[in-house]
Amino acid sequence: MAFPSDLEIARGAALKPIEDIASEMGLPNHLLEPYGRDVMKVNLDAIEELAEAPKAKYVVVSAITPTPLGEGKTTTTVGLGQGFKHIGKRATVAIRQPSMGPTFGIKGGAAGGGYSQVVPMELLNLHLTGDMHAVTAAHNLLAAIIDNHLFQGNERGLDPHNITWRRVLDVNDRALRNIVVGLGGRGDGVPRQTGFDITAASEVMAALALTTSLEDLRARLGRIVVGYGKDGSPVTASELNAAGSMAVLLREAIKPNLLQTLENTPVLVHAGPFGNIATGNSSVVADRIGVHAGDFLITEAGFGADMGAERFFNIKCRNSALSPDAAVVVATVRALKAHSGKYRIVAGKPLPPELLQENPDDVAAGAANLRKQVENIRLHGVSPVVAVNAFPDDFASEHDAIRQIAAELGARVAVCTNFAEGGRGAAELAEAVAEAVEEPTNFRFLYPDEASLREKIETVATKVYGAGNVQYSPQAAQQLDTYERAGFGRLPVCIAKTHLSISSDPKLKGAPTGWTLPVREVRASVGAGFVYPICGDMRTMPGLGTSPAAFRIDLDEHGEVVGLS
Amino acid sequence: MAFPSDLEIARGAALKPIEDIASEMGLPNHLLEPYGRDVMKVNLDAIEELAEAPKAKYVVVSAITPTPLGEGKTTTTVGLGQGFKHIGKRATVAIRQPSMGPTFGIKGGAAGGGYSQVVPMELLNLHLTGDMHAVTAAHNLLAAIIDNHLFQGNERGLDPHNITWRRVLDVNDRALRNIVVGLGGRGDGVPRQTGFDITAASEVMAALALTTSLEDLRARLGRIVVGYGKDGSPVTASELNAAGSMAVLLREAIKPNLLQTLENTPVLVHAGPFGNIATGNSSVVADRIGVHAGDFLITEAGFGADMGAERFFNIKCRNSALSPDAAVVVATVRALKAHSGKYRIVAGKPLPPELLQENPDDVAAGAANLRKQVENIRLHGVSPVVAVNAFPDDFASEHDAIRQIAAELGARVAVCTNFAEGGRGAAELAEAVAEAVEEPTNFRFLYPDEASLREKIETVATKVYGAGNVQYSPQAAQQLDTYERAGFGRLPVCIAKTHLSISSDPKLKGAPTGWTLPVREVRASVGAGFVYPICGDMRTMPGLGTSPAAFRIDLDEHGEVVGLS
Repeated sequence: MAFPSDLEIARGAALKPIEDIASEMGLPNHLLEPYGRDVMKVNLDAIEELAEAPKAKYVVVSAITPTPLGEGKTTTTVGLGQGFKHIGKRATVAIRQPSMGPTFGIKGGAAGGGYSQVVPMELLNLHLTGDMHAVTAAHNLLAAIIDNHLFQGNERGLDPHNITWRRVLDVNDRALRNIVVGLGGRGDGVPRQTGFDITAASEVMAALALTTSLEDLRARLGRIVVGYGKDGSPVTASELNAAGSMAVLLREAIKPNLLQTLENTPVLVHAGPFGNIATGNSSVVADRIGVHAGDFLITEAGFGADMGAERFFNIKCRNSALSPDAAVVVATVRALKAHSGKYRIVAGKPLPPELLQENPDDVAAGAANLRKQVENIRLHGVSPVVAVNAFPDDFASEHDAIRQIAAELGARVAVCTNFAEGGRGAAELAEAVAEAVEEPTNFRFLYPDEASLREKIETVATKVYGAGNVQYSPQAAQQLDTYERAGFGRLPVCIAKTHLSISSDPKLKGAPTGWTLPVREVRASVGAGFVYPICGDMRTMPGLGTSPAAFRIDLDEHGEVVGLS
Repeated sequence: MAFPSDLEIARGAALKPIEDIASEMGLPNHLLEPYGRDVMKVNLDAIEELAEAPKAKYVVVSAITPTPLGEGKTTTTVGLGQGFKHIGKRATVAIRQPSMGPTFGIKGGAAGGGYSQVVPMELLNLHLTGDMHAVTAAHNLLAAIIDNHLFQGNERGLDPHNITWRRVLDVNDRALRNIVVGLGGRGDGVPRQTGFDITAASEVMAALALTTSLEDLRARLGRIVVGYGKDGSPVTASELNAAGSMAVLLREAIKPNLLQTLENTPVLVHAGPFGNIATGNSSVVADRIGVHAGDFLITEAGFGADMGAERFFNIKCRNSALSPDAAVVVATVRALKAHSGKYRIVAGKPLPPELLQENPDDVAAGAANLRKQVENIRLHGVSPVVAVNAFPDDFASEHDAIRQIAAELGARVAVCTNFAEGGRGAAELAEAVAEAVEEPTNFRFLYPDEASLREKIETVATKVYGAGNVQYSPQAAQQLDTYERAGFGRLPVCIAKTHLSISSDPKLKGAPTGWTLPVREVRASVGAGFVYPICGDMRTMPGLGTSPAAFRIDLDEHGEVVGLS
């Protein structure tokens, strides 16, 4: 019998009433707002009201540098959350809201997989409670106000050629990447070139993920820099009178969403900032609630430990004032084999057949990446745990090879079969994590606020990525000087680079050293609260393929969704 | 003491638990889905499950031709719903969802007014349960699939210069009216000119308002014509494999939203199609539920009786198979004075002071418009009731003048003070409506399905608008021929013209006759199910003014919304 599809498994789930899930977290009824039958929003008053509850152990789930297929980090995160029940502990899971555009593109859904999923997966993948749409609306209202300002006489003296605020939509639509607006007649606005990004790339989304309260969000929105005046001075959303309305549009979106796993583990789903030009982490407010709602809070950070985890430590924790107790590094046999440099994995294509043959030596040959990512966790004073996300085609000898690498690193390790078996298959990992959090931690940021932007970039590049040095384009150098002068120098940095290599070159596997990080351009998300140097081509609006998931997603004769993976 | 603002009144409302409101309508719990604490979605199974309940009297609220300020039709609709309780009857109100773009533009909110409001008004005006956003998402997914089709080789042979499907956003953004997409490099799509409309103008919205079930909606979406092939043949959403995903995106949006008035009258809020290029009526499914949920269902139709009510009768009722029992025609002293032709009222400017002086003769001089709109109701075999929406500045002699006109027409009439007094102030109107529905009705469409598109246009133009004849541009004539050949000739017509005159010239007041209706162009909303001739400039994407409501809307120190009217 074939293994059932994610959707088949999800449809067979025995959901608990979501109010019971909330109650087990210690969330009283007055803090909850139902959205449909299986989802609730949690009022931010929960942060204060739960503050006296015991603090959970706070665990971030990261990974080695993934292949283009992804290494099942969400599946492991969800499975680990489920696994704690099997060792008698209460855990909460925190993840990002999936972006809807890619759901209709290549992916067809992102809610974990197999017997480790967040449910109802149709809701998670489609609209949920509308937070993404609220971000879109707030972002585009600001854009409309900017173009209206130009049209109404441009009193502030905005330089039309230096407006950095674009528009956003949660759809994969390459035709919107570069557009000219304001065409038509005299009454139809001022013509200029601009474009759309996907909503996950919105600075509003990044601000939502990092904010600590509605008041703080209002202030962050006001600090958003939308462009520059003809005199070179930064122009903010606040100067254009847009921040109040934007905050009003986000009044519900700031509340985290409560769902559950297939095994009724509570899951807080909130915010979905991009993992390259933004933090790739779920929200601070969800974690601040979840960290007082059980024995463990398991939160996921996007891409490899050099990306999501580094930002988790240095940006998200700086905003949340929370200290992690352990970090999981997810590894797979196929990704380690790929880091040997012998295989080429392409998204949407079958795996090379050689890669599926038993070959523990190739696993060992790819160990450098795992070693470096474990080191990246330790750089921040946190205990690493290696999680092997087991695939049906893996061989025991290959898992042993990973155990061997972990042993050499002195790191705990567990093989996880939770995709096929649910939480039971992650009980070993839960045990390992429960041990790791008991070790003394010494969590630290990699750099102080006071360091210059260049120092911050160079610290991350050399210590985390293994770069030999950093090279700035003349434009980037000038931008860094401008930002330092404008007072943005105290912000942390979020280095936008490929997630497919620990370096800035997606072709380099393993853990290369001595290379040069090229900073082409530097942008500032002043409202969200970070500066992001751009190293490579960052695509912020995906396109659809020749046969997108949208062609298969449909309703069946009962009105149920089909085709979502 | 000044009369309190709408927001102040709304904040002081004593809301009943929304489940109690539903229960009074006879809606059992399993048909309800909570969205937050004060709103519920109603499952469409309610149509079948309530079918055995007694049928309510079905009353449409329309108006004389309004001034640019609007004549308080929603306020009267809400007040009438409230008024029935004061005469011992149970009523349900059905209205459109307000478009969010204008909320941040000139309007600042649209939920009725004074003591006749739908609450919570912040939810009604902002996002509600996300239906508008779902329409936006479905519409723009189709747009992305079209441009992707061009990019991937254009197998169907779409003519890039004859793609009629644009994009939509629920924001007032004039810069998006005319844009060029697909700029950038070879990988960024195929350059072409297009634009954005506001979401209320989306054909998906019109289809949502006219559909009868999820299955029917899936079929309507498939029939949407997105453009024409190089061979001139219409290209549908179905041919591009988009309809299934679009329907999936609308799976929740198809369920009507239940709110309440300040006096706890149930209100079904659902769909918000534009009143010029679309029907301007709330959804068929909401009415099919509400029509078995009490003694009266009060449903609102946009603009004057020549616009919203004509479409209600000939398009909405054709889709719903429901027969109205009476029609209210809302009139105001100021609008009747304006129809005398002596005053000029401009949106956003104070009223001319002369218009505020006691002058029953000018009211009588504007009577032609009221007479014609009452006749337009009777043309469809329905009993009219004139409702005078009283303003504080009105004089009794002016109200008497309107009573006199109604008496001459043999129509029931009532003066409504529900803005200031709530339902009590509409009890007289409720009594008049309760009498009118007991008269024998003989509801009829103005034209049969089999009439040609030209016959349909000419019937509405001459009988309803009072035109002498219709003139087609060569383009319009050709389009009509094309549509007849393509089999769209059986669809009803939705004539897009100004709402500020019963004619197609906004400057003509009263009830002009003998004029010529110029049809410039004809478009087909084949998916929604109507053909719309365009007579005049129809703006489908508003802009922001010099001082939009967005500048004033904000959060107060308690996180509550301020500035929404």
